[in-house]
Amino acid sequence: MLLQLLDYLGVAVFAVTGGIVASRKQLDFIAFLFFATLTGIGGGTLRDLLLGVPVFWVVNEAYLVVCLVVSVFLWFFAHGIERFNKPLRWADAVGVSAYSVMGAAKALNVGDTLLVAVLMGVSTATFGGVLRDTLAQEPSSIVKSEIYVSAAFAGAGSYVLLAQFGVVPWVAAILAGSVAMILRGGAILHGWSLPGYGHRRRP
Amino acid sequence: MLLQLLDYLGVAVFAVTGGIVASRKQLDFIAFLFFATLTGIGGGTLRDLLLGVPVFWVVNEAYLVVCLVVSVFLWFFAHGIERFNKPLRWADAVGVSAYSVMGAAKALNVGDTLLVAVLMGVSTATFGGVLRDTLAQEPSSIVKSEIYVSAAFAGAGSYVLLAQFGVVPWVAAILAGSVAMILRGGAILHGWSLPGYGHRRRP
Amino acid sequence: MLLQLLDYLGVAVFAVTGGIVASRKQLDFIAFLFFATLTGIGGGTLRDLLLGVPVFWVVNEAYLVVCLVVSVFLWFFAHGIERFNKPLRWADAVGVSAYSVMGAAKALNVGDTLLVAVLMGVSTATFGGVLRDTLAQEPSSIVKSEIYVSAAFAGAGSYVLLAQFGVVPWVAAILAGSVAMILRGGAILHGWSLPGYGHRRRP
Repeated sequence: MLLQLLDYLGVAVFAVTGGIVASRKQLDFIAFLFFATLTGIGGGTLRDLLLGVPVFWVVNEAYLVVCLVVSVFLWFFAHGIERFNKPLRWADAVGVSAYSVMGAAKALNVGDTLLVAVLMGVSTATFGGVLRDTLAQEPSSIVKSEIYVSAAFAGAGSYVLLAQFGVVPWVAAILAGSVAMILRGGAILHGWSLPGYGHRRRP
Repeated sequence: MLLQLLDYLGVAVFAVTGGIVASRKQLDFIAFLFFATLTGIGGGTLRDLLLGVPVFWVVNEAYLVVCLVVSVFLWFFAHGIERFNKPLRWADAVGVSAYSVMGAAKALNVGDTLLVAVLMGVSTATFGGVLRDTLAQEPSSIVKSEIYVSAAFAGAGSYVLLAQFGVVPWVAAILAGSVAMILRGGAILHGWSLPGYGHRRRP
Repeated sequence: MLLQLLDYLGVAVFAVTGGIVASRKQLDFIAFLFFATLTGIGGGTLRDLLLGVPVFWVVNEAYLVVCLVVSVFLWFFAHGIERFNKPLRWADAVGVSAYSVMGAAKALNVGDTLLVAVLMGVSTATFGGVLRDTLAQEPSSIVKSEIYVSAAFAGAGSYVLLAQFGVVPWVAAILAGSVAMILRGGAILHGWSLPGYGHRRRP
């Protein structure tokens, strides 16, 4: 149930980031729909293809309706959202956190092994944003020095660990999602980063 | 039957656009084959993966032969084709129109719902070109202000609507394909565009 | 058995190229893992999705362990590897050669036709590198004039031909892999290229 909510939340906030990109590029409404939908469902689509299960939005149209509603909302209010501080990065952070947990949880449900579950969490949490940035021809967060992939990794990893120790799914999801969110939030606010390769080599 | 023809047509004209890109980049013949084939079959491949049905060109090699023939033809005649006005964009327009209808039609045949069918039409009509432009490192039409995604949307949407009202498939396909083609053609000839986000905000 | 080894080899050397890219961009360890893993398993993942068989690393986690080991190794020794001449391009060449054969072999095993097997070899041999270069926002080898796609094509094509003439798989794999490696190696060392479109047109 909570996982279901997390799933809608992940789709919705990634859809918001897609819509914000479309608004910054001054695109038309259909492009809003396109960017919001592809960013919203991209990560989960990759997850389901890799797991070999039916794609979630083909099974349940409600996810597409969520993207449609988000697009309409942003078409009218994107200028308002831009008054917040770094709205795109914060929505993206919520999306990464929610999806990293969801990706791992769905992989565990399908019965896959721990490493696979972690990788599924990481790749599906980051894929929507990569898709959005590639299509919009913006530099992707993947290659920045800030914590990004690591936050997804921490979220997926903690969920898998907690689930392994028998923690009930919704508690594990909240804890793991918070871990990812705190790491990514710290990166946005304070530029948190792990030591990069060069820093370690040339002290 | 007509849908079958539209499918070959979509593959062939997208293959033409891939070959034109290869010729403009002065690539060798194998690269012609590569670009023509990936652009030609890219959209349909995504469609089949998402629908969870066997990939069309794995089932029926004839599509690969079409791409091979197109590549050989372009290797000899790309310079002739370039004498036409904007050959790449017109071939791409035919491809988008044919694929938007085909994507929606195949999704409806598999029994999916209306929103899914429209999204399938849009994403598969645009994916081949996105793949081509990304691999060739050219700016994609997706983020231009001209009507592009909207034409695919109109094509897929009209097909789904017409099919819903009981219009026979081949009539629906011709009508819907024409709608997409007229919109995209108008964009190429006259720069047709929908109002973008900024225009509406700052009148 | 040899095919199995080739498969691990392909994954490992592509993982090496992913790790080298991460080290050149001074990324953190999690990013090493991410680039190494996605580059290592990208091509085979596409192959399995297209063939409609379960994704190899979801079935067998050992491939992920290979990527993990490669990442740890590179995190400590990437600076040593960089002392070699063009390590990224040579590792990539081994990966392309191994994967072009593996892609074709797996497609033939699943019972697909010859053209499909060749295309599967080519696209899966090149996909990992394209994914790596796209995510890292580096120019891809696909659009350079040097022999690259052609080497994958020669590898996959020779394997399919040899298998067709009844050559035992491991001999066919060694021969076909060598063909690809020689072509790509010649391109790296001597800039071998096939005649491009423009050269033929304006002699």
